[in-house]
Amino acid sequence: MTRTLTGIGASPGIAIARAFTLSSERYLPEKTAIADAKREIGRFREAVAVAGSEIEAIRASAEAKLGAGKAEIFEGHLMILEDPDFIDAIEDKIGEEAINAEFALHEVSQSFVELLQSMEDELLRGRAVDIEDVSSRIMSRLRGVPHSDLANLTEECVIIARDLTPSDTAQLNLDVVRGFITEVGSRTSHSAIMARSLEIPAIVGAGASVRDIPGRTLVVMDANEGLILFNPNDEQLEAYREKKRTDDLRRAELAQLKDRPTVSRDGKRVELAANIGKLEDIQRALDSGAEGIGLFRTEFLYMGRGTLPSEEEQFASYKYALEKMNPKPVVIRTLDIGGDKELPYMELPKEANPFLGQRALRLCLDRPDLFRTQLRALLRASAYGNLKIMFPMIAVLEELLDAKKLLEEERAKLLAEGVRVSDKIEIGMMVEVPSAAVSADLFAPEVDFFSIGTNDLIQYTMAADRMNETVSYLYQPWHPSLLRLIRLVIQAAEKEGKWVGMCGEMAGDPNAIPLLLGLGLHEFSMSAGSILSSRELIGQLNRAEWSDHAIRALGMRGTREITQYVQSIRNGVTG
Amino acid sequence: MTRTLTGIGASPGIAIARAFTLSSERYLPEKTAIADAKREIGRFREAVAVAGSEIEAIRASAEAKLGAGKAEIFEGHLMILEDPDFIDAIEDKIGEEAINAEFALHEVSQSFVELLQSMEDELLRGRAVDIEDVSSRIMSRLRGVPHSDLANLTEECVIIARDLTPSDTAQLNLDVVRGFITEVGSRTSHSAIMARSLEIPAIVGAGASVRDIPGRTLVVMDANEGLILFNPNDEQLEAYREKKRTDDLRRAELAQLKDRPTVSRDGKRVELAANIGKLEDIQRALDSGAEGIGLFRTEFLYMGRGTLPSEEEQFASYKYALEKMNPKPVVIRTLDIGGDKELPYMELPKEANPFLGQRALRLCLDRPDLFRTQLRALLRASAYGNLKIMFPMIAVLEELLDAKKLLEEERAKLLAEGVRVSDKIEIGMMVEVPSAAVSADLFAPEVDFFSIGTNDLIQYTMAADRMNETVSYLYQPWHPSLLRLIRLVIQAAEKEGKWVGMCGEMAGDPNAIPLLLGLGLHEFSMSAGSILSSRELIGQLNRAEWSDHAIRALGMRGTREITQYVQSIRNGVTG
Repeated sequence: MTRTLTGIGASPGIAIARAFTLSSERYLPEKTAIADAKREIGRFREAVAVAGSEIEAIRASAEAKLGAGKAEIFEGHLMILEDPDFIDAIEDKIGEEAINAEFALHEVSQSFVELLQSMEDELLRGRAVDIEDVSSRIMSRLRGVPHSDLANLTEECVIIARDLTPSDTAQLNLDVVRGFITEVGSRTSHSAIMARSLEIPAIVGAGASVRDIPGRTLVVMDANEGLILFNPNDEQLEAYREKKRTDDLRRAELAQLKDRPTVSRDGKRVELAANIGKLEDIQRALDSGAEGIGLFRTEFLYMGRGTLPSEEEQFASYKYALEKMNPKPVVIRTLDIGGDKELPYMELPKEANPFLGQRALRLCLDRPDLFRTQLRALLRASAYGNLKIMFPMIAVLEELLDAKKLLEEERAKLLAEGVRVSDKIEIGMMVEVPSAAVSADLFAPEVDFFSIGTNDLIQYTMAADRMNETVSYLYQPWHPSLLRLIRLVIQAAEKEGKWVGMCGEMAGDPNAIPLLLGLGLHEFSMSAGSILSSRELIGQLNRAEWSDHAIRALGMRGTREITQYVQSIRNGVTG
Repeated sequence: MTRTLTGIGASPGIAIARAFTLSSERYLPEKTAIADAKREIGRFREAVAVAGSEIEAIRASAEAKLGAGKAEIFEGHLMILEDPDFIDAIEDKIGEEAINAEFALHEVSQSFVELLQSMEDELLRGRAVDIEDVSSRIMSRLRGVPHSDLANLTEECVIIARDLTPSDTAQLNLDVVRGFITEVGSRTSHSAIMARSLEIPAIVGAGASVRDIPGRTLVVMDANEGLILFNPNDEQLEAYREKKRTDDLRRAELAQLKDRPTVSRDGKRVELAANIGKLEDIQRALDSGAEGIGLFRTEFLYMGRGTLPSEEEQFASYKYALEKMNPKPVVIRTLDIGGDKELPYMELPKEANPFLGQRALRLCLDRPDLFRTQLRALLRASAYGNLKIMFPMIAVLEELLDAKKLLEEERAKLLAEGVRVSDKIEIGMMVEVPSAAVSADLFAPEVDFFSIGTNDLIQYTMAADRMNETVSYLYQPWHPSLLRLIRLVIQAAEKEGKWVGMCGEMAGDPNAIPLLLGLGLHEFSMSAGSILSSRELIGQLNRAEWSDHAIRALGMRGTREITQYVQSIRNGVTG
């Protein structure tokens, strides 16, 4: 009998294949007394050694397939195998209690996992998954069963699992794996991110019912809709095969747009760029047809480590990005720490309202040592490509002028030292504080460009924390207040002959793009995966018409009225 | 030799009198072994009993002098004396360690104070002061020294102290105490608030140098300027006597304006109202010449207690206020809890950014039971005076419409029950969220008035927590962004024939009033103490001229430029 399940579409696409069910049952060992504890410890050590060589092999293969960044996680796994806190605890338990290695391993790893899961630090909480992954591998060795069959798959399949661990995803044989479905997870869980990065369809968080899908059953998964069908009837199967053909075709069609300019139906040229947060994202951006990087977040250089990154480290990263994108532009945003992003080693004081606190440029101006290091690295890298520097969280003109002054001082020093610095670096600022939008005309003469950060601009304009569910109803990108502020910024820029981009979520939303085009936005920066369809969409829009629609929307009473209006026009109900 | 010190002028006025130095040295008892622990405990109990009757006497006198509200704090003190956690700990320490009562009291009270001071809850942190106050009183009894001489003062004096505790201020003999100066404290500390309420000059936070002022030295304090002179020479003394005469005269002169209307030099009538936070403030507002209450905060009804206030309790308070002010208007703001104001008994979830969280009307709309109770109490009270209801923290039109709908439902119910409800209640909203200012034209047809809450509007427009010192440089009431938003609101209101008030700090700032008058503000609501001087100031201003000045200010680049411009005009440098 056909059954339908739903989940979260985490990576788009349609797949039709037989289910391969990855055993989700955790093996719960019995506790048994053993006579020879020394021998049991020996058996455990052997299992650890074998697990170690397996992980090393996966690491090497992941590095070859996915790059050094993605392989790092396995170095973490190897470190767990060498961690005396962990390994000695298990051996002690076997020795002192004279019990079987399986049970000792289970008990110790569980207590580590629980401890880590109770931590406030998200990074440490994330380590629980690694401990589970490594422990389950040792357990398989102890039991003499294969740890995971993922590497040996030879038939086309859709993988069904409770969740996929980092070692699972690294081993996926992409020649045969058509997609995967997990019981738990969200759009931001490891497996979801990996699926998008591997560009295979994935549905996550589909719930416990996925356990009902028998192995080798025929499964249809439509990750565009978050829909799972198993045991489809012939009619359904045919319909989804057709849908998949259309979907595949559409992807191929979109791929045609990769190297095309972005032009509206009435000939207005705009730019589609990618938001990136680490160096590995650059290739993806290029593959997805980005005309530049519209937002390069530099926080990755500062996070997940114990000290500030040196000028050299930063220089190397910026240079890499600029060279790889050259001659396309790369807008690099200076450090945006604080708010929801913490750097434990900087020991910043706890704030009652971190989103309204000393974040981003405010912190940088208070810590010029730290800021100058980043500015020097950026200036030195500028010689290797098309760099644009962007300052975040500016509220008043003095902040912008102070930041520019520091930049000019560092430029002068570098030039005096004989270091090559581009003389074509554009300087811009994020518009994410309402004050900056309301007074954009005061800032426009002092910048080369604005980039509107809608995520923050919305939360401040509405005075509603975008992470707080109780006020999430106020996160309204379509509200007339927002559209009016966007228009103010664009008008102020145009008067000074400057350009305006947008790097918030809104810029990649197909329902927002027509209005933004109508308001005169010059650059849309979004996640790489949205670029091609946005290019296609803009090609279908008449900018002059949408300019009229946008003006009309500015006078409407609220979000609902505006979205309905936009929908009705896009559906051709109204002219 | 004459010396000059400076501090924070916390309550205005000039005083000239001899110093009365309140011993600021904390007595640090030595630890001594005692032979008869039982007798020592008896001695301690006796001290506690005497302290208890002293506190009871102060309580009664405070109630008579200052009202029940101000006396409540001493009920808290009495509770500390009966708290077994505290008292038993001291007696146990004396008994178990066989040490003197003074040392045991010191050790235990210190540990309580440190514990309380480490609490996140501000109310609990405040309790540390109470423990110190009570402990010092018991200590005085144990040592057989007078706890405080404040009640027995018979000569004119200026009190000099490290800080004044609640029992100190309650005992002040206002027949002889001419003012006080404290080493620590800020404009919002207990002693500062008490000084303003008692209307005596006070300078707080004057630093450790105040310890250099010998007792009975002649002291000149100018709390208007935060200036302290001791051992003044004859010339200085005469100058300050003259200044005090002028100051006293000026106060008498201002008092003449108490019942006059507020009219600009060119005949524009505006309204000066008072912000109040509890019923006791109403008399003060009337005495200070308020033409109405522009902001009646209702949080006092909900705070410092264990359960929500009933409809009857609220009704009684609102009725009292409306009757007392009648026929003058009273703008009552519905509950503005959340943000920096917590209600422990409501068990609201901790928020990462409470200022951007579920506060004020957002919470009320989520808890209609609680909100309807307040609305019913307000509607019932409306029959007794000139009520205007104001909703806080509105960001989008739907919130206003929802609040009005609940109000109309309760009105209909009451009328059906035959309850008298005024049919002239004006309905307004605070403008404190940037969205409401940017879209004021959408709200204007739906309200009778706006009241601009600058304290919050500034913090959201600048995305800077007004309580966070590291970003306090962004608290800029004069910034063009703020002035532009104020202008937008006033223009939108005038187009619909509605009035606009302001109830943030800015409305009572003599440097801001000329610009606000120029922008067309109709009502200025401020602390009662600023009303008379503001009325005088407005009488000297030409509104038409300031309208031109304000328009010019809107185009300036920042706060500094605007304040300099305003100063130069007020000083007559520019015309």
